[in-house]
Amino acid sequence: MDDRKQDDTQRHEQAAPNVRARIRESFERQGLMRHLGARLAHIGPGRVHIVLPARPEVTQQHGYFHAGATSAIADSAGGYAAFTLFPDDSSVLTVEYKINLLAPAEGDHIEAVGTVLKSGRTLTVCNLEVFGVRGEERRLVAAGQQTLICLPGRPDQ
Amino acid sequence: MDDRKQDDTQRHEQAAPNVRARIRESFERQGLMRHLGARLAHIGPGRVHIVLPARPEVTQQHGYFHAGATSAIADSAGGYAAFTLFPDDSSVLTVEYKINLLAPAEGDHIEAVGTVLKSGRTLTVCNLEVFGVRGEERRLVAAGQQTLICLPGRPDQ
Amino acid sequence: MDDRKQDDTQRHEQAAPNVRARIRESFERQGLMRHLGARLAHIGPGRVHIVLPARPEVTQQHGYFHAGATSAIADSAGGYAAFTLFPDDSSVLTVEYKINLLAPAEGDHIEAVGTVLKSGRTLTVCNLEVFGVRGEERRLVAAGQQTLICLPGRPDQ
Amino acid sequence: MDDRKQDDTQRHEQAAPNVRARIRESFERQGLMRHLGARLAHIGPGRVHIVLPARPEVTQQHGYFHAGATSAIADSAGGYAAFTLFPDDSSVLTVEYKINLLAPAEGDHIEAVGTVLKSGRTLTVCNLEVFGVRGEERRLVAAGQQTLICLPGRPDQ
Repeated sequence: MDDRKQDDTQRHEQAAPNVRARIRESFERQGLMRHLGARLAHIGPGRVHIVLPARPEVTQQHGYFHAGATSAIADSAGGYAAFTLFPDDSSVLTVEYKINLLAPAEGDHIEAVGTVLKSGRTLTVCNLEVFGVRGEERRLVAAGQQTLICLPGRPDQ
Repeated sequence: MDDRKQDDTQRHEQAAPNVRARIRESFERQGLMRHLGARLAHIGPGRVHIVLPARPEVTQQHGYFHAGATSAIADSAGGYAAFTLFPDDSSVLTVEYKINLLAPAEGDHIEAVGTVLKSGRTLTVCNLEVFGVRGEERRLVAAGQQTLICLPGRPDQ
Repeated sequence: MDDRKQDDTQRHEQAAPNVRARIRESFERQGLMRHLGARLAHIGPGRVHIVLPARPEVTQQHGYFHAGATSAIADSAGGYAAFTLFPDDSSVLTVEYKINLLAPAEGDHIEAVGTVLKSGRTLTVCNLEVFGVRGEERRLVAAGQQTLICLPGRPDQ
Repeated sequence: MDDRKQDDTQRHEQAAPNVRARIRESFERQGLMRHLGARLAHIGPGRVHIVLPARPEVTQQHGYFHAGATSAIADSAGGYAAFTLFPDDSSVLTVEYKINLLAPAEGDHIEAVGTVLKSGRTLTVCNLEVFGVRGEERRLVAAGQQTLICLPGRPDQ
């Protein structure tokens, strides 16, 4: 088994149960994630993975995953990674992000990993990575950086 | 009627018929655009508009348009804006983009406008704007900048 | 005379005298701007121009203006453009910016123009442009987008 | 001693002597780097470090390193990191970069680290980090991502 994959899916610490519950509930309300067929694959403290299986509904004109689908799960992964470190009664909004599409996004599925790089009271900065996964193979297809804002006193519901 | 809207939807020059046909065919092959319910609203030389109607399938957890949906149509609008200026037998790929989510994206629909800022033989840079539209009201909800690459001798099909 | 230049240097509204004074004082304290030889060329409400004359001290290896010099004046122009709209007792900090170097930056001088795109209580987003100017010629050499944060109750001194 | 610092300054592999010579010669021609007082601190394959000592000439209005100085050495570090992997008779140009200023940049010096994330025939993408260093302390003050283009057949001189 690929070491990196093992590392990503098995060894990482889980976030606290109430944090995971809060994020699962929020994710369920994201109509776009459900419509695309995306699912939460891991919720760690400051780190969230989202998986999107290949299907014709998420492609661009050459049959690869559309940059918009790649970005959508990267944005949600980073947003929830930041959210794991926010107070209970707050919301998260994406301020901006930048993403490089490094290689055609293909595979059985793609997996976005959002990781908090710097956590502040108001602003949080995340690193974004998206991997194309086919069987045991895992290839970096996109990388980016994202700024998020914490809205205190505005529960995410 | 809002002047800007009039300007955007009525006064702008159309691209040549073969260019418009080439882009419509390519857009039709983007499974994601169809799945989201997006449609091409204007194809001018160096400028493309894409509209996405509001539906639960494109929302984030608070009911606004998901940043991923906003970005997806912005990315496609910029990509096709660049493509209008490319040779016939070429393809376009997004190298990277950066987008600021300026306000909650809401309205009857959102409209992404991609405009070529600098056209080069290899690289093209586009300006990206997304407006939330409700009736006659039109509000800038996202703005960004995108870099695209022209792949010559590789027809987009 | 180039229309755009006339527009940029003559027709634009000036910011209020106290705002201009506040920004000139802040600019004087930026050791880097003085060291590079940059000067404030215009302070309008939500719009600031900074000029940097060509000198060997600001070049990269091919003799053009260094991307770092181009970015430095673009960052300051955007920061002060945001600052024109902030309360008196606040400071401004750059959260992030993205810049595309569109063409080799050359000319008698370069001129950065920062323009507020969206002004918020906490965050402001600016559009950044840098022009290479030789005589009456004016060419866009860089374009970007910047996010700034207002720090209230912390006067800029 | 801080593990990360040890890692960064001692353990990393050196690039081939001719590559290091080529980069040192190019760096010497960057008037801006000399004018700021920056120096090359490490040239590894796909990884370059540049150090900038604190001096009044590189500050912003509050006495910290100016974002423009921070970005300038980050841009050069990334550019030369890409250049270590390019053919002998080629040049490198920055296409674009995005940088987040994570914390006030202060210390005895700042150190920019450019690392190749994805190397392609035409385009290369680098990760950019800048650390504020005071004695044994080392703190991440900026992080970014950069796209570069290889210009073949155009030696960098």
